[in-house]
Amino acid sequence: MIKNITGKIDFIESLRGKKATFMLALSNTDTANIEGITQAGIPNKIYLTPTLDSEFLTTGEVRSLDNIAETPKGVPTPALITRAVHLLKPFSNIELINLGLEQLPQIEYFKIHDFSIKPSKSIQEGANIDAQSLFQQGVSFGQTYICKDDYIILGESVPSGTTTAKATALALGYDCKEKFSSSFKDVPNVIREKTIEKALSNISLDDDIFKILGSVSDNMIIFNAGFILGLNNKIPTILAGGTQMACVLLVVNKILEVMQGEIETSNLALATTSWIANDEKSDIKALLEMCKFDINSYYSDFDFALSNHPALKLYDDGEAKEGVGAGGTLVYGELNGLLKTTLTKKIENLLGE
Amino acid sequence: MIKNITGKIDFIESLRGKKATFMLALSNTDTANIEGITQAGIPNKIYLTPTLDSEFLTTGEVRSLDNIAETPKGVPTPALITRAVHLLKPFSNIELINLGLEQLPQIEYFKIHDFSIKPSKSIQEGANIDAQSLFQQGVSFGQTYICKDDYIILGESVPSGTTTAKATALALGYDCKEKFSSSFKDVPNVIREKTIEKALSNISLDDDIFKILGSVSDNMIIFNAGFILGLNNKIPTILAGGTQMACVLLVVNKILEVMQGEIETSNLALATTSWIANDEKSDIKALLEMCKFDINSYYSDFDFALSNHPALKLYDDGEAKEGVGAGGTLVYGELNGLLKTTLTKKIENLLGE
Repeated sequence: MIKNITGKIDFIESLRGKKATFMLALSNTDTANIEGITQAGIPNKIYLTPTLDSEFLTTGEVRSLDNIAETPKGVPTPALITRAVHLLKPFSNIELINLGLEQLPQIEYFKIHDFSIKPSKSIQEGANIDAQSLFQQGVSFGQTYICKDDYIILGESVPSGTTTAKATALALGYDCKEKFSSSFKDVPNVIREKTIEKALSNISLDDDIFKILGSVSDNMIIFNAGFILGLNNKIPTILAGGTQMACVLLVVNKILEVMQGEIETSNLALATTSWIANDEKSDIKALLEMCKFDINSYYSDFDFALSNHPALKLYDDGEAKEGVGAGGTLVYGELNGLLKTTLTKKIENLLGE
Repeated sequence: MIKNITGKIDFIESLRGKKATFMLALSNTDTANIEGITQAGIPNKIYLTPTLDSEFLTTGEVRSLDNIAETPKGVPTPALITRAVHLLKPFSNIELINLGLEQLPQIEYFKIHDFSIKPSKSIQEGANIDAQSLFQQGVSFGQTYICKDDYIILGESVPSGTTTAKATALALGYDCKEKFSSSFKDVPNVIREKTIEKALSNISLDDDIFKILGSVSDNMIIFNAGFILGLNNKIPTILAGGTQMACVLLVVNKILEVMQGEIETSNLALATTSWIANDEKSDIKALLEMCKFDINSYYSDFDFALSNHPALKLYDDGEAKEGVGAGGTLVYGELNGLLKTTLTKKIENLLGE
């Protein structure tokens, strides 16, 4: 079932049965190399996660690993959920957005939007992003993008992205200390907080907004804030993600504030998982309500109650929670008649192969 | 399974797997306020039925009731069937046609075609419809309507619509006394017959056709007769309904007779429920065969044999039978691979929520 976080059900119901393009925004930040900061990937090869996620989503294969045995044994990537939905109720189109990958996915035939963007540095020492130019690239992309389907679902894969998102929102002055999620159940607060503290020490609240973003944020957040403003409500768009996507909206909100602009958001929504919506350690609703504009937001109540697979049960226990557009994709599945039993079996199946 | 009433299976089979826009024609007539004439709704709030039906179909929520406890305990609205199919095999698009509602549905994002049409009066005293102008609005709508999908499914929600339909057909001279259905199992013939008798006493068979229609019919029937003629066979269209939709065709037939016109009907069909097709108290086949043109017509053999829910069993017992495009929607479900078990469960589920 699709449930509301904020707003009303009408927007998402109006997309029932309609065709979607799934876009996956991919980026690396050196922040992910801080030991213990994320569990989104293989230790020492965290940087490969967006590459592997996009390979698996598009082809069902993990190609950029020399040794397949390295596949993590812990919490399976949410790409598993997105891929399973795509197998059962396929997106009409998948496109990748390369926002600074260490390594390109080894795939053919799928559109990869490329902007010659480099991975960003660790926010501990300053991410060193030319934020204004990156934001402008996002705006232009949104202005010129032609969608052949009825709507866009925009997901992301950025290891340690919740850390950079939290740093971003704090640096922009939002009162959100306890409101950001993590891929961990027991959020490694010490490492994360130290990293964020260090990042915030590099900037001043009086700095120009792009200077701040360029130091504490990541490419995904900055580019997509521009993308949303460039789209300007003309294509129905679902931000498929949790607190990272909420942060994109907070950046949009702050840029509008600084530029004294406004945005129509009737065609924009956020959709996430039940693990995020019901997370006691973060508060996506509060984050969304910090925006001056209204935003419809939703979650799918899908969980692994019908599964006995220990790796999947970790999701219900509070690990992983979101990523690779899993939440928005679960909502998409429900909009297209996908049943919980069928999806659970398919995900178990993928895991067993 | 999809079965034939008249014609051949080919037309409907050619739509298998294709995309449909569902249109719901909504209207109120004061005829519905005659006590005991219909069970399509909440006593004293019958006029809300099309409003609530359209809210439920589009959003899954019933919004225009102050007190949700008023939801009728008797026969559940066929909107339940239409919504359940839409959840499992979604229409690509839903649009509403406001043909004189007392109260607008409280929904956003869904297209509501509006023509500033007022609810009609009771046919007992003359419905007081400007039938020629309304018919012309239907024609223009059909001529200009652009369908983004492969075909249209046209349903209706008009409380006491079977009474106005029967009065219409009789007033136009069709020999159809025993051929019209009712939402009741034991059709309240006395009230209905008295109402129709009274309606017929207000007109003369020599009257101009639009004068007759304006006195004894309803907005849905008159507008849709125009709509069909305006479409002129250019978009495949399924009239999703029982004897009311058959009456629309009888009106088309009569207008063509009066105007000495012809219509190509190869892209036009009617689809209804098994409860109508097998109803011993009405005869939709006979009604369809009164038309000079050939018309393909179908029904879905779906019933509640797999359910033990007492409220649903009322359908199999002969109550409710059709409405909100249920029959055409069941056929649509079958055209898209929907299984009886899955649908039965989903309907029970909606009822249980």
